Formats: sequence, C-alpha cells, structure tokens
Amino acid sequence: MNEVAAIVGGGVIGGGWAARFALMGWQVRVFDPDPEAERKISEVMAGAQRALPMLYDTALPARGQIIFHDDLADAVAGATYIQESVPERLEVKSKVYQQLQAHCSPDAVIGSSTSGFKPSELQECAARPGQIVVAHPFNPVYLLPLVELVPGGADADTVARAADILREIGMYPLHVRAEIDAHIADRFLEAVWREALWLVKDGIATTEEIDNAIRYGFGLRWAQMGLFETYRIAGGEAGMKHFMAQFGPALKWPWTKLMDVPEFNDELVDLIADQSDAQSGHLSIRELERLRDDNLVAMMRALRGQEAAAGQLLRAHEDQIRAEPEDGVPFVCFHRTVPVDWCDVNGHMNEGRYGQVFSDASEAVMAHVGADRAYIDAGNSYFTVETSIKYLVETLAAEEFYVEARVLIGEGKKLKLYHEMKRSSDGTVLSTCDQFLLHVSLETRKSCPPLPEVLQRVEVMASKHAE
Amino acid sequence: MNEVAAIVGGGVIGGGWAARFALMGWQVRVFDPDPEAERKISEVMAGAQRALPMLYDTALPARGQIIFHDDLADAVAGATYIQESVPERLEVKSKVYQQLQAHCSPDAVIGSSTSGFKPSELQECAARPGQIVVAHPFNPVYLLPLVELVPGGADADTVARAADILREIGMYPLHVRAEIDAHIADRFLEAVWREALWLVKDGIATTEEIDNAIRYGFGLRWAQMGLFETYRIAGGEAGMKHFMAQFGPALKWPWTKLMDVPEFNDELVDLIADQSDAQSGHLSIRELERLRDDNLVAMMRALRGQEAAAGQLLRAHEDQIRAEPEDGVPFVCFHRTVPVDWCDVNGHMNEGRYGQVFSDASEAVMAHVGADRAYIDAGNSYFTVETSIKYLVETLAAEEFYVEARVLIGEGKKLKLYHEMKRSSDGTVLSTCDQFLLHVSLETRKSCPPLPEVLQRVEVMASKHAE
Repeated sequence: MNEVAAIVGGGVIGGGWAARFALMGWQVRVFDPDPEAERKISEVMAGAQRALPMLYDTALPARGQIIFHDDLADAVAGATYIQESVPERLEVKSKVYQQLQAHCSPDAVIGSSTSGFKPSELQECAARPGQIVVAHPFNPVYLLPLVELVPGGADADTVARAADILREIGMYPLHVRAEIDAHIADRFLEAVWREALWLVKDGIATTEEIDNAIRYGFGLRWAQMGLFETYRIAGGEAGMKHFMAQFGPALKWPWTKLMDVPEFNDELVDLIADQSDAQSGHLSIRELERLRDDNLVAMMRALRGQEAAAGQLLRAHEDQIRAEPEDGVPFVCFHRTVPVDWCDVNGHMNEGRYGQVFSDASEAVMAHVGADRAYIDAGNSYFTVETSIKYLVETLAAEEFYVEARVLIGEGKKLKLYHEMKRSSDGTVLSTCDQFLLHVSLETRKSCPPLPEVLQRVEVMASKHAE
Repeated sequence: MNEVAAIVGGGVIGGGWAARFALMGWQVRVFDPDPEAERKISEVMAGAQRALPMLYDTALPARGQIIFHDDLADAVAGATYIQESVPERLEVKSKVYQQLQAHCSPDAVIGSSTSGFKPSELQECAARPGQIVVAHPFNPVYLLPLVELVPGGADADTVARAADILREIGMYPLHVRAEIDAHIADRFLEAVWREALWLVKDGIATTEEIDNAIRYGFGLRWAQMGLFETYRIAGGEAGMKHFMAQFGPALKWPWTKLMDVPEFNDELVDLIADQSDAQSGHLSIRELERLRDDNLVAMMRALRGQEAAAGQLLRAHEDQIRAEPEDGVPFVCFHRTVPVDWCDVNGHMNEGRYGQVFSDASEAVMAHVGADRAYIDAGNSYFTVETSIKYLVETLAAEEFYVEARVLIGEGKKLKLYHEMKRSSDGTVLSTCDQFLLHVSLETRKSCPPLPEVLQRVEVMASKHAE
C-alpha cells in the first residue's frame, strides 16, 4: 500500500533521504555499491529515528521498511520517487541515469542531490530528460526542511509531483526558476567558505573564533528571518531603501577578499584541519551529530511555538500527518515522542512537561467536541482551573507514549477529565492527571456556557464515558 | 552606587547599547544631537524591556536610569564605559573623540560601534589612543551576545576591562587579534550581501526566496554551530581533511559571482526595495522587530535548554546575576518574567508552564538546602511524586512574578512543599501548588534518605516554617 522511494547512492546525504522517507511512512529501497553502505545508512537512520519524531508534536506515520538491493534494476522498479546521490562526476551520473531509466517507471520522479551540476547537464545524458529534476537537500536531510528544486528542462508535471512528494515528507521545495551554478544556497555557503579560508590562512581568526562570530551573532538572525528581512529591520522606519543607501557604498570597499581565491594546498588543509581538531576534536562525529540534532530539534520546536520560519512549516506538516483520534472509551488523545527540550538535569522529562502533556490532551478532547482552533479564534475556550498530577514512572527523551482521557463530568461550563499517560512499548502507566476545566469567553475572560453544538458533543461524550 | 555608561550617538545601535546597559543595572547617560533621539531610543528601550527579561530564567538586576544630556561633557564625565555609535565618517568620529576625551576619565573604556574603521584609524585621531577599542555589536544589541572587540593599539588594561564589562552585561567579546577591514563577521555578511544582490539583479531569485533558502537550511545550522563545526560533521568519520578534499576543488569553480561587484544604482535599489515590500511590507518595522525578538528569545532559550552555543553563554550569565534567595519564611524562590515561549493559543501562560514554575521553585528550595547541581551530579536528587495546581488568575507574556515556598514536611526522604506564585506588581496570587517530593539515588532510581548535611538543612528549614 505504501509508496516506494528508491535511494541510489548512499553516504550521509543518501542515508538522510532514506531515513526521512522511511520515517514518513514510505517503503525505501537502497542501491549503493559501497560495501559499507548498509552500516553507514543504518547509523544515519539511528540518528534520524531518534531526532525526527522528537521534532513533531504528533506521531509520525507508521515507519516504512528500508531494504538494501544489490541490483539497481530491482531497487528502482515500481518506485514513485527516485533520489540519486552518487558522486559528483558527470560520467558516473550519466551511467546511473542510463541504467535506472531502463528499469524505472516513466512516471517516476527522479531527483538528484547534486550541488555541482545544473539540471540541464544531467538531463542531457538521460534517455527521458523530462523525468529528472535537481532536488538538492541540506544535511541533516532528515531534519532541515530546505530542498532546492531546480527543473531545468523537466516536464511541468514532473516538477509538480516532485514538489508534492517533497512537501509530503515534510520538506520545503524552493523552486529555483533559473539554472545557475551551485543553485542558490550553496553560492552563499561558498562565498562564506572562501572568505573564511582567507581569514584562517591570513591568521586573522581561528576556525573556532569564526564559528563563534557566526553562532553568537548573525547565525541567530538568519535562522529565523534570513538576510533581507533582517536588513529591512536594520533600515528602521525608513525601510529597505534607507538601508541600501546607508550600506550601498560599502560594496566598493575591500570588505571581502572575494576578488581572489585562496590557493588550495596541503598547507591550507592542515591549517584548517588542525584548528578544527583543537576546537571539536574532543567529540566524535557521532557525538557532534547528536548535539547538532538536539540543538536543531530544540530550535525548530522553539520556532514552532512562535509559528515562525521553519516552525511554521513544521506545524503545517503536522496538520497533514496528524491522525484523527477515534471516538473510543477511553479517548486516545494522541501518540507522540518525548522531545529533548522537555528533559532536565535529572536526565528525564521535567515535571512541568507532564502538565504540558495533559494540557495537550485536554486540547485534543476539546478539538474532538468542536472547541478547536477556529472556535478559540472566534472567542471561546476552556481554561484549566485545577490539575492534580501523579508521577509514577520516570520518562526519558525519545520515549514514545500516548494519553488516554476519560470525561468524568461534562455539563454546562464544567469539564472534568481524568488522563493516563502510558508508555507505548508496554502500556505502563507513567503518570495520571485529574483536570478540571471551565468554559470561558476570551473577550470577558469570565466563565460562560459553551456554544450549543459544543455543549451537546460534550454531553454525548460524558454520557458515553459514564457507562 | 551603580556604574555609569555613556552612550554617544543614538539610533538603533546606540539605543540597543543604552537598553542593554540599563537593563543590566547600569546608569546610562545618552548624548545624541538628533532631535528625534529621545523618541527613537525610548522605542528601542520598550522593545528591549519586553524581550531581554524574557530571555533569562532569573530576574535581571534592578534597572538603571537612562538620562539624556544636551552636553557631551556632562554625559561622559565620571562614566566607566563610553560607547560611541556616531555616523561612519572619520571626521565626525575624530571630532567626537577630541571632545569626549577632554571630559572623560582617562580610566574610562571607550568602545566604538564602527564596522567601517579599524581601531588604529580611530586611535590616530585621539588624544589618548590607548583608551579606545572597537566594540562592534550586532543588532538587536540587547539580545545578540556577539561583540567584536578589536584592540588595535589600545592598552592591554583597557582591552581587559572592556572585555570584563561586556561580559558583565551578558555579551560575548570576541577578541579580534589582527586589524582587518570590516573585522570578521561583517566580511561574511558583505560576501553574502554581494552575492544576494547579484542573484536578485540577475532574476535568479527574489528577496523572499533567498530568505527562505537561508532560514529553512543553513541558517539553522549556523545559529548553533557556525561554519567549521558544521562542515566537520559533513566530512563524516573521516573528518575535516576529508571534507576539504571533497570540496576544495569547488574553490576553482564559478560558484559565486564574487570576482565582481554589482553596480549600485537606483534600478538595483528599487528592485530590492520593491521585492522586500512584497515580502514583508504588510508588517511595520515595529511588528517585524517584535517577531524577530520573540523568535530570538525562543531560540536562544531552546539553546539554553541544550546548554549549547548562545544558550551556554546565557546560563553562565544567569549564574553571574542570580541573586541568592534569602532564608525567610516564606522562602522567596525567585523573581522572574514569563517568557514568550511559555504562552499558548489562548494568549496566556500555558498550564504546563505552571508545573515548570513550581518545578523551578522546588529546585530553588533544593539548592538552598544543599541539593544543588553538584549534589545532583554526584548522584542524588529529589524527584516530584505528586503535584496539585490551582490556576487562579491568568498570566501573560512578559509579566513579572515571584514564587514563595513553604516547607510543610521535611523529614527523612520526604519533602512536602506549598508554593504561591504571585504577580510582582501587586502581589496577587496567580496560582498555588502542593508538591510532594521524594529523595532518590540517581544510580538506583529508587528512593533513599538525603546525605546528612542536606537532611539537617531540610529539618532546620521545616522546623522554621512550622512556626
């Protein structure tokens, strides 16, 4: 029943694609001649399996299988989407396209992870050029939403299907309308990289100082607004024109070394590698990846709370994948995963977050009786007046759980709920909560009866749960 | 008693400095001949007053006054720290240095916000060059920690005092050892800005597409790790050398336009300004600033939770400014401000965050009896077993509050607390909490008696509170 994605070429990028597709419920087939591919991709998958479910405030779809194939033909036959991430050499890519187009469906979308080639260069060496697009992702592919979608000469229909599929797995396809070397984002990365190499080579700054110059300053600005919106603000009330007038002249100043390119030699490589070792060498790559993933999850979840930037994408995707709870007794409010930002110095979920869980649970009950976001926006809601929580078994980051709710009282403006939070793996009760809510008008901030259609559904639910 | 900072030259940057110093407890004197200065700086102050206290998990020092002076001499006399943010014209700066050095203490530190000049250029036009450093901040100055500290020919003692003062007000002084045009961070900003102007001018991407290419991708990476540590990970197990070997050759490819600079003319300005209007013109600069500040606060607080990047700096600064609670009855655990990431769709503090408040309150009690971070790291802690919370009055973002704790039971492994959360402005009780904790071994995860010195202090506190 599940759709099939074929991942051709592994490594960190191919592994990231495999992990994202599988965690979003696709069947994944991997073809990668590297004898180490299965180990490498499994490691990426382990990181993704830990991080991606923590990013979401809802359960992900049932995980798809990842199957490794020795034969490219088997891997791509019947696939809806094929992602090519083989080495950046045109003769290698050309051979792969010849082979895979001989065996894949002409309706499949073929995306390339290339940063080095324009789509037309890939399309030129293909039997069916219209089937191929550039779909250039950013590491870690399983967390960062950006994917540059560059059509070149691809069929409009292929491009539209590629965009739909990428959105379905939680990504943001940025349609790059014109072909250009390195697409868009990598041009910025390359500009900064070149300048950074000069600064290290000239002894102005170390790799660590440069990282600090970025992450304590403009990195934070860019993570949420990018470049132009940030500068629009810097222009103050006079806006973008004022900003440009102020900083336009600097374009003529020697503020970058980028009229020139540093020579790439062993000396430069050693200089950078030694400084990087001094900065981060006390941590393994796995440890660094885990720190990075935890930071990204926590920051993206923070943006989710603000409904801003990547957090806005995340919410929209959650709405797509959220399963409607069934109308059973008890009412299962949701399944989800303990995110890393809910844990404290004791290494377990902080007691405050149990309140969050049960608050979310009551929101699920509210939504079920029609007191949903639209109802709240229209000026009505339930406020919690009192909760009593028992912490029975401690809960750790990345643990899966669900919440069962029972309506004890549901009459007039009163709503009394009893919740059990249970571990998904074995049903152990982790925590319980008695919760008393009152219906309020958001205008007067005073209690009042719910609107009739909500009240009726509350009463139906209460009488069902009373049995 | 408080130290005095003089802010010379206002605008967004000078206003940001004034706000940060005042909110960190300094007396601030402003000299700015702009007739609009007082209005402009007050607006920046309003934004800062809302955002900065929300960033911290502890109360800021008592706010200092901001006083506007018509006379430069009055503003700088007796100041410990003087920050110059006048327009980027050397003849203007030169005149200002002549005047202010005639009236300021020779022991004062003079920092310049310049991005356009090297410290030696400023020092050359000063009577006492050793007193001047470049202290280049990033907008919003009241939230972003980065400040580039460039000594040039400044006295070592001045540089050390500048660094201490900047750290005291919660900033990260990045010591730039060698003078260079635009220091460090602005060289990257300029490189990206130049490339971005080309992309817009050539019709490859709009300002909004470029912002999305940054904030959905590498912006998130850079906000927490910067450039080199990110690439170290991309190199995988083979590390930085492998990454360089892979991407070194791209240095020769035409991946940036930066061999060349776009012509700065009206056409380019209009193109950028029009696209920026289409992207963000539905929001005023004040609204954009508020969105930016809320996003920055939420993201930096997320990093605080991970003890990473800017969040690590924040924690260290909190430890510096946190006031030790007094040993009274009731025990006042802390004063603080409701941060924006604690609020929900109802526009008020989410019920789960009350649990957080009372969890933090019990942590303050624990620290007071010696069950502090070191005690926890050594393998002992208190776990909360049950809480019962009453929500009496709703609480909004940026509202100041404090928590009073009473020890009801403190014997053996048992600790029973009663908390009241009160609004700072009028003492209204916002919420109450009964909380039952058990002492545990973090090794066995089972309950056990506290170590004798902690138990003794618990018993003393309990008997005091029983009276």
